[in-house]
Amino acid sequence: MIIIMNKACSDEQIAAVEGKVKAAGMQLNISRGIERTVLGLIGDELVVDKELIEILPGVEKVIRVMKPYKIVSRESQSENSIIDIKGIKLGGNQIQVIGGPCSVETPAQMDAAAQGVVAAGCKMLRGGAFKPRTSPYSFQGLGVEGLELMREAADKHGLPMVTELMDVRQLDYFLQYGVDVIQIGTRNMQNFDLLKEVGRLKVPVILKRGMSATIKEWLMSAEYIAAGGNHNIIFCERGVRSFETAYRNMLDVTAIPVLKRETHLPVIVDPSHAGGKAWMVPALTRAAVAAGADGLLIEMHPSPCDAWCDADQALNPQELKTLVNDVGAIAKVLGRELG
Amino acid sequence: MIIIMNKACSDEQIAAVEGKVKAAGMQLNISRGIERTVLGLIGDELVVDKELIEILPGVEKVIRVMKPYKIVSRESQSENSIIDIKGIKLGGNQIQVIGGPCSVETPAQMDAAAQGVVAAGCKMLRGGAFKPRTSPYSFQGLGVEGLELMREAADKHGLPMVTELMDVRQLDYFLQYGVDVIQIGTRNMQNFDLLKEVGRLKVPVILKRGMSATIKEWLMSAEYIAAGGNHNIIFCERGVRSFETAYRNMLDVTAIPVLKRETHLPVIVDPSHAGGKAWMVPALTRAAVAAGADGLLIEMHPSPCDAWCDADQALNPQELKTLVNDVGAIAKVLGRELG
Amino acid sequence: MIIIMNKACSDEQIAAVEGKVKAAGMQLNISRGIERTVLGLIGDELVVDKELIEILPGVEKVIRVMKPYKIVSRESQSENSIIDIKGIKLGGNQIQVIGGPCSVETPAQMDAAAQGVVAAGCKMLRGGAFKPRTSPYSFQGLGVEGLELMREAADKHGLPMVTELMDVRQLDYFLQYGVDVIQIGTRNMQNFDLLKEVGRLKVPVILKRGMSATIKEWLMSAEYIAAGGNHNIIFCERGVRSFETAYRNMLDVTAIPVLKRETHLPVIVDPSHAGGKAWMVPALTRAAVAAGADGLLIEMHPSPCDAWCDADQALNPQELKTLVNDVGAIAKVLGRELG
Amino acid sequence: MIIIMNKACSDEQIAAVEGKVKAAGMQLNISRGIERTVLGLIGDELVVDKELIEILPGVEKVIRVMKPYKIVSRESQSENSIIDIKGIKLGGNQIQVIGGPCSVETPAQMDAAAQGVVAAGCKMLRGGAFKPRTSPYSFQGLGVEGLELMREAADKHGLPMVTELMDVRQLDYFLQYGVDVIQIGTRNMQNFDLLKEVGRLKVPVILKRGMSATIKEWLMSAEYIAAGGNHNIIFCERGVRSFETAYRNMLDVTAIPVLKRETHLPVIVDPSHAGGKAWMVPALTRAAVAAGADGLLIEMHPSPCDAWCDADQALNPQELKTLVNDVGAIAKVLGRELG
Repeated sequence: MIIIMNKACSDEQIAAVEGKVKAAGMQLNISRGIERTVLGLIGDELVVDKELIEILPGVEKVIRVMKPYKIVSRESQSENSIIDIKGIKLGGNQIQVIGGPCSVETPAQMDAAAQGVVAAGCKMLRGGAFKPRTSPYSFQGLGVEGLELMREAADKHGLPMVTELMDVRQLDYFLQYGVDVIQIGTRNMQNFDLLKEVGRLKVPVILKRGMSATIKEWLMSAEYIAAGGNHNIIFCERGVRSFETAYRNMLDVTAIPVLKRETHLPVIVDPSHAGGKAWMVPALTRAAVAAGADGLLIEMHPSPCDAWCDADQALNPQELKTLVNDVGAIAKVLGRELG
Repeated sequence: MIIIMNKACSDEQIAAVEGKVKAAGMQLNISRGIERTVLGLIGDELVVDKELIEILPGVEKVIRVMKPYKIVSRESQSENSIIDIKGIKLGGNQIQVIGGPCSVETPAQMDAAAQGVVAAGCKMLRGGAFKPRTSPYSFQGLGVEGLELMREAADKHGLPMVTELMDVRQLDYFLQYGVDVIQIGTRNMQNFDLLKEVGRLKVPVILKRGMSATIKEWLMSAEYIAAGGNHNIIFCERGVRSFETAYRNMLDVTAIPVLKRETHLPVIVDPSHAGGKAWMVPALTRAAVAAGADGLLIEMHPSPCDAWCDADQALNPQELKTLVNDVGAIAKVLGRELG
Repeated sequence: MIIIMNKACSDEQIAAVEGKVKAAGMQLNISRGIERTVLGLIGDELVVDKELIEILPGVEKVIRVMKPYKIVSRESQSENSIIDIKGIKLGGNQIQVIGGPCSVETPAQMDAAAQGVVAAGCKMLRGGAFKPRTSPYSFQGLGVEGLELMREAADKHGLPMVTELMDVRQLDYFLQYGVDVIQIGTRNMQNFDLLKEVGRLKVPVILKRGMSATIKEWLMSAEYIAAGGNHNIIFCERGVRSFETAYRNMLDVTAIPVLKRETHLPVIVDPSHAGGKAWMVPALTRAAVAAGADGLLIEMHPSPCDAWCDADQALNPQELKTLVNDVGAIAKVLGRELG
Repeated sequence: MIIIMNKACSDEQIAAVEGKVKAAGMQLNISRGIERTVLGLIGDELVVDKELIEILPGVEKVIRVMKPYKIVSRESQSENSIIDIKGIKLGGNQIQVIGGPCSVETPAQMDAAAQGVVAAGCKMLRGGAFKPRTSPYSFQGLGVEGLELMREAADKHGLPMVTELMDVRQLDYFLQYGVDVIQIGTRNMQNFDLLKEVGRLKVPVILKRGMSATIKEWLMSAEYIAAGGNHNIIFCERGVRSFETAYRNMLDVTAIPVLKRETHLPVIVDPSHAGGKAWMVPALTRAAVAAGADGLLIEMHPSPCDAWCDADQALNPQELKTLVNDVGAIAKVLGRELG
């Protein structure tokens, strides 16, 4: 917080501001310039009401310097954070594509999926073991068994594995099977207790945007994780709720440049959940890369027609390969390269 | 389930759909129109994923005929469910008002709050011990100590207590302190593991609507609780996210008659979180009752200026009393009465 | 606009501000207090950019006093405006119900409609001669012939007539048939040329809210009409676009108290277009009145099943009568009465 | 059209529906399932209003099978429409960039703007003579004088001119000055009388999407123009209203592939009005092209700081040039080229 004093403020007035600030547990740095005296508040400005300072005599203006988010803000770190996932770099010049099925189904399916992921030139494997489903009567995922199947397929093909955590009680299994990237889903973006838990780990976290979360709320949720000590956070835009019914969610492509300006953390996009139809995925993927995304989370199933969930949004291995090729070409235009 | 085929679908494509449908144990009625061929699926459509059909070649659109929610649906039970909370009936002819502060702060504050609740003619006490806050740097609630303080105040004044559950690990404390109604907050409406846990209890559950949840998704979340065996579910409309910035959330008053038609369960309204300003609460409260709400969840603080959170949306005890009086008068117009 | 100068500002600095303000065609009132010198800008502050003053030496703070809307604002007139429609008062203590069909169809239909309106205790007749339809292939209204049929029915039953103006070229016919209240529809809320035209008349105007207009934009559209000299403006909330698909539009009941606070002009509600289904109308009507609406615009058709448009949202005459009765009873609770 | 009856509908109710349908000249196919009776309407469903069936007793839901738009639909013409604007082709393999200021201000400004447009490699000039402004107190555009200034600058630099039509009474001036492409703005997307007027011309029309218009409504508005005989229609996505406040409108990039599938007409994007800030324009422009847009409408001002309106969203000539270069490179990746 910066407090700009009047040109002719008195020492007594400065002392009064200092008193108020110290009472709130902070320090003041006094900088006497030629035109103005500027006071810099040292400490956590979020605990002081701006209005309580602004009314003091001699104060000209109070400007909050800090965004409500701190650790994750671009102000706190100007260069991009690059997150290391078993040697794969996310957030730098390379664009990473994470591919795989909606849900883990069988050993054969996961093996074929991992093979397709490698063949397409992707570097990480995704798949759901615990599935958030709107209906209690839908397939809820294989659970722990799914983690096991996925670990095997991932190891066999030398891929880090990415999967969704829905409940704190699943965390031990995630650690047991060495999940490489933990995904926090849309419906849990403001499950603050879950955020606090992953904040205690060092495992990279993909934080999906809530169904109708503002970018500011999203940054605050990341701050929950960061405040716990885990700074390996990856934002994932996956479309937001809107009035439009021609597709599932409205991909908010503008969120990409806004986030890149507000935070030093990487931003990836999930074009599959955004549109909800496989035929929309290539256009959305290309748009995401062109807008500056650092990576993609794309659903691919060895045989989409046989998928146990979200069958209509998965690409087949060949479609993924073609698309990754496009990603590489657009990356080049932007002076970047495929991971 | 109705399957609309493309204009130029082939007989082979129709046969493929038929094969898939029969494999799931159902029959197909084929109706060839001039513009389109329409297939009608005969059997329990809930066992087939719409997406699995939609992805098949030649299929243009798949439409479900049956509702996806069962236990909570009005079709499954035509008369209203009346939920008994320590002898207080919610969902019948009486309209119940639940009052109390945003968060539990001190014994004196809770005592004064409970006293104000009784004086206003309300029958239940609300208050937050575990608080979902957008910022990790905001007051997060007193936790277990809050439950204890609230229990004491509630017992002293003979009121059932209503408080929010945010995490499965808090559940033992909720049972220990005999929380009378468990509230599932907006951000947890689709925290399916939490829903399953409260589904195993018999304690009544207030299920708040998600920030941008459709009524159908909301009913499906209730179905998660009901499927576990707990049918004591109370819907709580609290405003949804919109483009309007003149207030916090847009109270969806239409959701009240729609829910009353779709489900036999009670519907209450939280006018405090909807508008976000105390001066809006009376108008919204009256509108909710007039639209058919079975109850209200209203924030009241003995001294709103000193509230530790959401100070600007709490009524004081006298304002609550005046408002409850209005509620009673409107209830009478509708042939109902204040609880 | 109020300009707060630094405590020790010089006469030269004050003179500089004065120069800038006068160059923009305004005057300055200088008030030298003990603590601060405060300059009050006299004239239209909206023509000066706040930022252009704020950067001047000696200026501490610039505060806009006026809302971007002026004539329609509650600041400009504290008491409610009461609009006189052939002796019927709208905006005062009485609540007025305007009833009638979606579209004018035949002499017999309009006669029966007007009769039903009178029988229900309503004081004004609505009906569409020019219809805004999403599809070019839908019935577009009877046009001028519709105005004539409506005039006859209205006169026979002693009712003022309310109908929608879609295009400036229809205005002569509206004047010829003496339309008593001109309705500007949702899709034309920001048809600024049309607003300017009705601003030149004295005929009362019902200004419906745009599909996704903010309350501020809506007030600005009213300001367009008022700026032309026509202050007989009635706001009509009719639901806004949302993500919810269970009904047509989301009735924004909170807009009622917000508008009553921001403007002195009357606010009515159209519950028929909001919900889109006849069975929702009673609940929404009651909610609107309870929230403080000054009137209602309700669709009623002598025989809803035979209506040429929006058949599913019209009440029949008996349903309207019953509902108007409820309106009267709720009005009484609020210390108001049916018009 | 498919009619789903209630679970307990009677034979009389089915007969009544059949009567209504036959009276409209169509046949009915009755399919009695276990859960529901489903009626299939045979014939041209567009001649029956969905609402007229939906209101009949026993009917639960009515579903249209056919698209409500015809001339503009991809079904009616499978190959892309290419629109010829003074020899410049829009809708084919080339991507066209239209550049220019928000509003026409002075001869010198328009000359500099046109020069910058040519220098950047764009082929068409945009600029507003009639401006839709939220406030009646804001600059409303130069009007007819603006058309004249723009015509001169456009002719001098050999560029077709694109400008917005707000009112039917301006049309003669548009024809007099030979406006090459008429823009229908966001606020007029459902100004049906204006659509009908431009439908009578042959001049190409850019139809901007309404603030919260669904893609279907947008296609229906185009159908209004097409039904009048003018098939030279260009869709322009410019962002829609959302809950997010970090930027002005949410660019709906998914609308591009959806429109390209639903209609044979070209689709362009206005990235300037979408984001509302100049720094967002490059990312949004690149995303639009990558998603398949056929062209762009970009605001450029010779000196953005001096712009009379929307100063903060205009690029300067050099920024436009750099951006157009990127557009060309991405176009190449997609097998297209800059126009």
